[in-house]
Amino acid sequence: MAIDVAGQSTMANGGTASRTGNYEIAAPHLSRILSIQSHVAFGYVGGKAAVFPLQCLGYDVDVVNTVNFSNHSGYRRFGGTKTTAAELSQIFASMEENGLLLPSRLLTGYIPEAKALTAVYDLAKKLKSKTPELIYLLDPVIGDAGQLYVAPDVVPVYRTMLSLASIITPNWFEVEVLTDIKLSDLASLRLALRKLHTEFHVPNVVISSIPLKPWLLDVLPAQLRPAPPFPNTEDPGYLLCLASAARTDDADTRVLSTIHARCVPLIPGYFSGVGDLFSALLIGHFHFSSIPPSAHPSNPLAHATSSALHKTHLMLQLTHEHAKTLPEDERLPTDEEKDAMEPVRRFKRMRGRELRLVQGQDIIRSTEIGELGAMDVWEGFWEA
Amino acid sequence: MAIDVAGQSTMANGGTASRTGNYEIAAPHLSRILSIQSHVAFGYVGGKAAVFPLQCLGYDVDVVNTVNFSNHSGYRRFGGTKTTAAELSQIFASMEENGLLLPSRLLTGYIPEAKALTAVYDLAKKLKSKTPELIYLLDPVIGDAGQLYVAPDVVPVYRTMLSLASIITPNWFEVEVLTDIKLSDLASLRLALRKLHTEFHVPNVVISSIPLKPWLLDVLPAQLRPAPPFPNTEDPGYLLCLASAARTDDADTRVLSTIHARCVPLIPGYFSGVGDLFSALLIGHFHFSSIPPSAHPSNPLAHATSSALHKTHLMLQLTHEHAKTLPEDERLPTDEEKDAMEPVRRFKRMRGRELRLVQGQDIIRSTEIGELGAMDVWEGFWEA
Repeated sequence: MAIDVAGQSTMANGGTASRTGNYEIAAPHLSRILSIQSHVAFGYVGGKAAVFPLQCLGYDVDVVNTVNFSNHSGYRRFGGTKTTAAELSQIFASMEENGLLLPSRLLTGYIPEAKALTAVYDLAKKLKSKTPELIYLLDPVIGDAGQLYVAPDVVPVYRTMLSLASIITPNWFEVEVLTDIKLSDLASLRLALRKLHTEFHVPNVVISSIPLKPWLLDVLPAQLRPAPPFPNTEDPGYLLCLASAARTDDADTRVLSTIHARCVPLIPGYFSGVGDLFSALLIGHFHFSSIPPSAHPSNPLAHATSSALHKTHLMLQLTHEHAKTLPEDERLPTDEEKDAMEPVRRFKRMRGRELRLVQGQDIIRSTEIGELGAMDVWEGFWEA
Repeated sequence: MAIDVAGQSTMANGGTASRTGNYEIAAPHLSRILSIQSHVAFGYVGGKAAVFPLQCLGYDVDVVNTVNFSNHSGYRRFGGTKTTAAELSQIFASMEENGLLLPSRLLTGYIPEAKALTAVYDLAKKLKSKTPELIYLLDPVIGDAGQLYVAPDVVPVYRTMLSLASIITPNWFEVEVLTDIKLSDLASLRLALRKLHTEFHVPNVVISSIPLKPWLLDVLPAQLRPAPPFPNTEDPGYLLCLASAARTDDADTRVLSTIHARCVPLIPGYFSGVGDLFSALLIGHFHFSSIPPSAHPSNPLAHATSSALHKTHLMLQLTHEHAKTLPEDERLPTDEEKDAMEPVRRFKRMRGRELRLVQGQDIIRSTEIGELGAMDVWEGFWEA
C-alpha cells in the first residue's frame, strides 16, 4: 500500500518542549509557524482566531493576510479587500529575498480565489522542498452545510495541494466535496477516508464535527457512544470528532489508518472561527505535547486532537456563557428568516457570539487535558 | 490657562481591574482597543509589536492594517501594499454599519500618507464625539534621528489631530518637527512641551527616549541622575524617559504640567518596534493599573509610563541576550556603510534583533513594576 508519509516522517522531530513560566513552548526547531489566512478588523475568525492562541503556546507566527475585511461574512455586510495572487507572491518573494522564509510549520486557511490559492500552493511546494520535515496543516476552507464559501475553481486546486499536507481538517461538507463521496453510512465514510489517505496522499485527517446522526450512533463502538437518553432520536445533540492517522506499515492492508474519535455535546447557536481556532490548536499541539509524549507514544495526532478539542470546547462554553449574559436582543436564537428581514438582528447576534479568546487565554495556555477532549481508539473501524 | 482636558476627563473611569488567572484585565467598559497601524508578515513592528501585548493584558483588540508588508523597512527590501485612504474608510464605514465601532480606546501608529491619515483623523473625530471619554494614544510616527519615515504632508495633518489625543508618544525628533522647536537646552524643551500642551491641547505627553546629553544631565535634579562614572562624557550611555501631565487647575500658571522622568541605561544596537511596543503598553496600563491605583493616585500617566518603560526595557534586554547567542554573522554591529555594500549583512542583523515578544510574554503579563521603570517627579522643571 503506497502512502505519502511526509507527515509521518516528521514525527521523529517532535516531542521536545521546554517550560517557560506557566506555559510550554515548542522546541526551538519547531517554533516558527507561517499562518496564511483571512484577517478581520473586528472579531475572531481566520488569523484573528489562530495567531493569538499560537503565540500564547509560544510560537513565533509569521502572518500573511489573504483578505483584509472589517468583520467576518456571517454579518453579511462587510468592507475591505482581498489580497491578490500578485500581492501574495510579492510578499512571499520579499520574505525569501530577505531570508525570512524560515517556518518549520505552515498553517493555511481561508483563501477565497483559485489564483491566490495557487500562489500559496507554489509557496508550500517551495517550503516543502526546502524543509522536508515541514509540518503543514491545510484547512481546506470550501464551505459548510452545502454552501460554498469560495469560488468553485478553488476545489480542484485544493485536491492537487492535499499531497503536500501533513494534516488536513475538512468539515463534513468539505470531505464530501473533496472526495466527491456523499457521506451517508459507515461504508461511504470509510471510502472517503481511504480516498483522502491513498489517492490524495494525506497522512493525517481530522474531521472535527460530524453531526451524530442515528446511523453514526449505531455503528459507534460502545465506549465511544455518549450516554442516553437523547432528547431527540433524529439528532442526539452530539458532534463526533474523528482523527485518522494513516498506518505506514504494510502489515494489514485492510487496516488503512488508526482511527480515534470522541463525542462532544453540541453547544447551541452559531459561532464563527471555531474551526480556525481548532486547526491552530491542532498544529500547535502536534508533536510537541503539553503532557508527556509518552501519554500518546504511538499517535501524536490523537494527542494533538484531544488537546485542540478540549480547549476549543472550553472556549465555546466560555463564549456561550458570556452570550447568555447579554441583553436579550443581543442573544437571539439563530433564525435566518428573521435576520433576512432585519439585518441589525443578525449582527447583534453575531457580535454576541464572537469567541472570547482574550478572556479565555488561560484555557489556551493550560497544560491540562481534561476528560472532555480525550480521544479513544475506534477498534475495528476498517473491518467490513 | 486653557487646556483641552479630554484626556484628563477620562481618568474618573479608570482604576478598576479584575484578576483572571495570573494576569489582570481591563474593566469591561475599558476593555476594547482599536489599533490602527502597520502590519508585517515577519517580525515585530507596528501592530505585530502592539496587538499581542494588549491581548495578553486582557484587551479585545480591533486591528486595522495601514500597510501589509513582508517585513519592516529596516531591512530596506520589502514587498506588499499600503492600504489606501478609500480602503480604510470603507473598513471603518462597514464597522460602523454593523455596530462594530465600539472601542473605549484608540491607538494609532504608522500611517505613511496624508490621505490615509486624514481618513483616520475623521474616524477619531467620530469616535471622540460618540465616546467623549475615549482614551486616544496617538503615536505621531514621522521619523527618527533627522530622517522622515512618512510623506512630508503628513506632518500638518498630525498637528491638527493632536487636539483629539489623550496621550502622545513622540520621539525626540518628532517633538522637534511637530513644534518646530530645536531641542538644545532646558528652555527649548520647556517651550516645546508648553506648545504641545497649550497650543496643540495635548493633556499627556510622553517622550520615551531622550539621549542623555551633557546639557540634559546638568539640569537633571540629583535624584534623577544616573550614578557616575560615565564611560563617555559626550554621551553617558543613558536615555531619559519623560512624562508630562498637564495640570488642569489654574493655581500656578508657571507650573504647566507635572513632570516625571527616569533614566534607563542604553542597550547597544538597533532594535525595531520598540516605540510601538512602548506605546501599546502605555495605553494598556493607562488608568487601569496592574498595581493598586492608590500607588499613583495623582498621576496615572506616571504609573502607566513606569509600567511601559519597565516592561519594554526587560523585553529589550531579553532580545539583546538572545542576539548574543546567535552565530557571529547574525549579530554584527550596526554599520550602515558595510550594510550598504552587503544587503545580506543588514537583514541578518535585523532578523537577529527582532523583539522576543512571544518568548517574553510573561514579562508583559507580569503585575510587578520593578525599580527599573519607576518614574520620579522632576521638581522645579518649570521654574526659570
